[in-house]
Amino acid sequence: MTTAAGSGHPSTALALGHIIYEVMYKQMRYDPANPWNPANDRLVLSIGHAVPIVYAAYADLSGAVGFDEAEKRLLTVDDLSTLRELSSVLDGHPNPAEGFPFFDAATGSLGQGLSVAAGLALGARLDKIDKRIFAIVGDGESREGQVWEAMDFIVDHKLKNVCVIFSCNNHGQAAAVSPQQSADAVAAKAAAFGWEVTRVDGHDPEELAAALSGFGANKKPLAIVAETVKGWGVDMMLGKNFHGKPVPADQVESACAQLDQTGQKLGAQSNGEVRPETRAGTPARAKGKPIKLPPFAEAMKRAGKEAALETKSLATRAGYGVALVALGDTDERIVALDADVSNSTFSDAFAKLHTDRFFECKIAEQNMVSVGAGLSAAGRIPFASSFAKFIARAVDQIDLAGISRANIKIVGSHAGVSLGADGPSQMAVTDVAYFRSMTRADAGRGTPLCHVFQPSDAICAYRCVELMANVDGLCYMRTHRPNASFLYPLDEEFSLRGCKQLRKGDKLTLVSSGYMLYTAIEAAQKLAAAGIECNVFDAYTFPLDAAPVLDAARAAGGVILTVEDNYIGGLHAELAEAAGETTDVRVFGMTPTRMPKSAKSAAEVFSYVGVGLDQIIEKAKALAAT
Amino acid sequence: MTTAAGSGHPSTALALGHIIYEVMYKQMRYDPANPWNPANDRLVLSIGHAVPIVYAAYADLSGAVGFDEAEKRLLTVDDLSTLRELSSVLDGHPNPAEGFPFFDAATGSLGQGLSVAAGLALGARLDKIDKRIFAIVGDGESREGQVWEAMDFIVDHKLKNVCVIFSCNNHGQAAAVSPQQSADAVAAKAAAFGWEVTRVDGHDPEELAAALSGFGANKKPLAIVAETVKGWGVDMMLGKNFHGKPVPADQVESACAQLDQTGQKLGAQSNGEVRPETRAGTPARAKGKPIKLPPFAEAMKRAGKEAALETKSLATRAGYGVALVALGDTDERIVALDADVSNSTFSDAFAKLHTDRFFECKIAEQNMVSVGAGLSAAGRIPFASSFAKFIARAVDQIDLAGISRANIKIVGSHAGVSLGADGPSQMAVTDVAYFRSMTRADAGRGTPLCHVFQPSDAICAYRCVELMANVDGLCYMRTHRPNASFLYPLDEEFSLRGCKQLRKGDKLTLVSSGYMLYTAIEAAQKLAAAGIECNVFDAYTFPLDAAPVLDAARAAGGVILTVEDNYIGGLHAELAEAAGETTDVRVFGMTPTRMPKSAKSAAEVFSYVGVGLDQIIEKAKALAAT
Repeated sequence: MTTAAGSGHPSTALALGHIIYEVMYKQMRYDPANPWNPANDRLVLSIGHAVPIVYAAYADLSGAVGFDEAEKRLLTVDDLSTLRELSSVLDGHPNPAEGFPFFDAATGSLGQGLSVAAGLALGARLDKIDKRIFAIVGDGESREGQVWEAMDFIVDHKLKNVCVIFSCNNHGQAAAVSPQQSADAVAAKAAAFGWEVTRVDGHDPEELAAALSGFGANKKPLAIVAETVKGWGVDMMLGKNFHGKPVPADQVESACAQLDQTGQKLGAQSNGEVRPETRAGTPARAKGKPIKLPPFAEAMKRAGKEAALETKSLATRAGYGVALVALGDTDERIVALDADVSNSTFSDAFAKLHTDRFFECKIAEQNMVSVGAGLSAAGRIPFASSFAKFIARAVDQIDLAGISRANIKIVGSHAGVSLGADGPSQMAVTDVAYFRSMTRADAGRGTPLCHVFQPSDAICAYRCVELMANVDGLCYMRTHRPNASFLYPLDEEFSLRGCKQLRKGDKLTLVSSGYMLYTAIEAAQKLAAAGIECNVFDAYTFPLDAAPVLDAARAAGGVILTVEDNYIGGLHAELAEAAGETTDVRVFGMTPTRMPKSAKSAAEVFSYVGVGLDQIIEKAKALAAT
Repeated sequence: MTTAAGSGHPSTALALGHIIYEVMYKQMRYDPANPWNPANDRLVLSIGHAVPIVYAAYADLSGAVGFDEAEKRLLTVDDLSTLRELSSVLDGHPNPAEGFPFFDAATGSLGQGLSVAAGLALGARLDKIDKRIFAIVGDGESREGQVWEAMDFIVDHKLKNVCVIFSCNNHGQAAAVSPQQSADAVAAKAAAFGWEVTRVDGHDPEELAAALSGFGANKKPLAIVAETVKGWGVDMMLGKNFHGKPVPADQVESACAQLDQTGQKLGAQSNGEVRPETRAGTPARAKGKPIKLPPFAEAMKRAGKEAALETKSLATRAGYGVALVALGDTDERIVALDADVSNSTFSDAFAKLHTDRFFECKIAEQNMVSVGAGLSAAGRIPFASSFAKFIARAVDQIDLAGISRANIKIVGSHAGVSLGADGPSQMAVTDVAYFRSMTRADAGRGTPLCHVFQPSDAICAYRCVELMANVDGLCYMRTHRPNASFLYPLDEEFSLRGCKQLRKGDKLTLVSSGYMLYTAIEAAQKLAAAGIECNVFDAYTFPLDAAPVLDAARAAGGVILTVEDNYIGGLHAELAEAAGETTDVRVFGMTPTRMPKSAKSAAEVFSYVGVGLDQIIEKAKALAAT
């Protein structure tokens, strides 16, 4: 099939021939014709470029493909020649979102699969399903630190329903793998990480079967370190490093003939063997069930924040904590993850009240996000939080969660520069550009690949979390450290693509969001005192329906000034792109013009980076209609 | 000092009191008054929030602060009360770029420091300086996978001039550290990773001295696992987890008194002890020395690519490889790193010809970038390459390199969707938005924090690499997989902020870059045949001087259409932001409108995501002036 595709990794696939046979034919309790059965054991192919061997086995087993059970069809061996074609469900790397439901998450960016397996295992435990998760990881791939974050996490959470199989073929792409990733080294590391380790010949079915018989039998999770041969069974692929190359068309026949001969010699059968019995599955959780949060005040009391109802001031991160508790009360699908900062992100309230659905990931953000992708595949709605700055640690994992169309919510606290004293290593200023970049690509269901939220007060934060829970897909919310006074009535409603007009004016239109909005409002008040009345908008979400902002601007001199405490690619870009198609509205933007540093207050840092109160007023005066 | 600052982490600092004493007073061979001396031993405080203890010791030792030797001053104990103030060199976390040259790189986003130490160690080896690098890592911090990527890398490269000290105080932020990060677990892991491991009481100077006497004495690099006490010496901080809180003002006196009493009891001296002798340093490498590459044809022959001079076609990633070899010939400061894909990024040519300056990082992009930051601090100009998609793995490390003002160049190959068959897990579509976000913030020396390059042909790629080498700071270049015919004469010149007009027209202005540009040109040719003459611009860099594009657009109907194969936040945003301040130019953008998938050709994927030839032509016809 790789020769037909003209690309792919047949040699890596052949290294897994016997392992895939043992796992997919002998060990996994599942019905290939119904990959949607929640009782199925699952396989995560972390070493994604080996996927042709899984496609081959799945076709041989007549596995079902398609986007849902209603329109499924059974994969045939003939289908295999469509590998990597635009119309094919057989994508170049594992990709459930293109119609291959045997998989739970996209892999191919290496080192992420074991974390996904951990998420699937947590989901099975929550659902009280006796379900086993197999994960296959390459030796070169095990250089990725995330693999060891997952090894820690699985031990922490006693996930004995996960088995990892390391395929050690000793070849990377550019060269041999390092001695640090030899089978001996991987085995020693796995043992040091607290796993039960079994060494096997990865091409000996009996050794593999014996090793896998220990799955779940020990006190520790099981790691199988299998020595494999890249290009096993095809001489032309052996010895030298034959990576990422299909067999030339004129040599396919001889290569296949050699495999057939070997197969006959070993008495292999092409299919029809008796596989483990399939269990009846509990019905999958209803997707898209709407989630309605209680009144804000009620949720505040429930979370022990009633005092803030009096002071009318609460940080948006605390508003997130209040909403998360209410979500947990409202819907059992909600789960939360944090990376040892739950007392800063305020996911700790959820941890106390919904202990069984909170998963402490410690300081390992990459693993946290990929575990979330696994939980999403298990039908949960994971909210994963850390400092927004440290969420940057998991950009590649978030990208992959997007490819998987995972229903995951990322919440970054202490965003922007308002954090102040801790300095730039704790300040997220590139996050808005990154997450906004995904807001205008369609996820394949008529909804954006990503929704971004930046609430300015706790009431808005509360409702944004409700919106996130009701979107089926990736969402990002940026919360801020400082306390912020309530801008909205307790029962204010918010919507996807929405924004709020907070002031009306005829000279200029100021647009901001998050904690920065308060400085914009203060500027507008001072400008009004000077006779310059400005519109003020709270643009709390991307994608943004810019029409109301543009219309208001047209009626107020046709000039918009955006104010942000993140680098370019956020609000200024969003409105400039919208206004760029017209000729009657001009857009100017204020974003940090220099790298921030520590200072005692948010206001000091705002001024230092060029978005301080006086600087906004000065710029506004220069732009205001006269 | 943390009480004066009103924030900070005194308890974490006190856990390091004895370790910092032993390292900064007894072990490090350096001159506190001249931190710029290249012969100095170095300390990387990976657990950045413990920085107050380093500031205290450095003040006690009258260490020099300031931006360069010419304007240095010696830190005093009185200065310590300015911690975290806007005007202070004592930033909230280690930050050399704000005037604290004792440090080599910003830390504070955890898990990165040991990689930086490895880069410093490589630099010392290249410079043949007998220099020791100490790195201090927290126990909770060691949950970050990158720490173990660095542990592998240091063994691979036999960097016995690095010593890591794990401070195991058993407390994280939200709770106790996991048993997976206990002193026993960390020691077992370090041993399994091939390190010499010594266990000590982190508050026993004699044990610490004995352990550090083994630094460099074994076949393996040395890891010291020190059991420490968070808040050591101050009762009010003990027991419960006292994290990230200063001592209340009314309790500072008693806390300090308790430390003084303990000090007297133990016979500690406040300063003036004999420290190891300082060695004369070799002069630091001249910064900003201009780098001039030879003629393109000459470099092509040197890299064995002369055949492409005949076919006049070469992938931009191959153009990068050619330029990298020429850079290596031209300037010894140039070093290169890759993550097991050097035969795809084409850094392999440099690896063959400049073996001693190429560092294979294997599949661990986070470590690769932070090692690069360390090499930059050692006076080198590192070029770090991988697939653009996998560069996303290191966003947080790139952020920190930016905070350090590291002179590092990131090169991502196979960018955008033109990769085709391998599918979305290998396609970088969010990279442009991320890197462009840093192009309008000043790095503190009148230059942007980041320059972004996206060459369309190998000639442009060659010169963009030359531009990158001559910029002092962070740069990103995006190269593409497919072969691309030469668009420019062999001796064409390119510039920062520049762009090139490739066609003149009067009906519309098309702007694109990279491999996508060829489709835009083809569209312009077909449109010309239909009587619609378009300007075509190659916008090969950000920040972009948009004036020439806007002027050309004004003379051609006032409409710009941008075409990109990355998600929003790139070229469309750049020009919409520029045109947004005027009323006589409209800007429309075409970017991928859906998640890409595998397909046989780049053209198929372009069409699938909405930026195909026919779609561009259709959109252009709708926008063209009539």
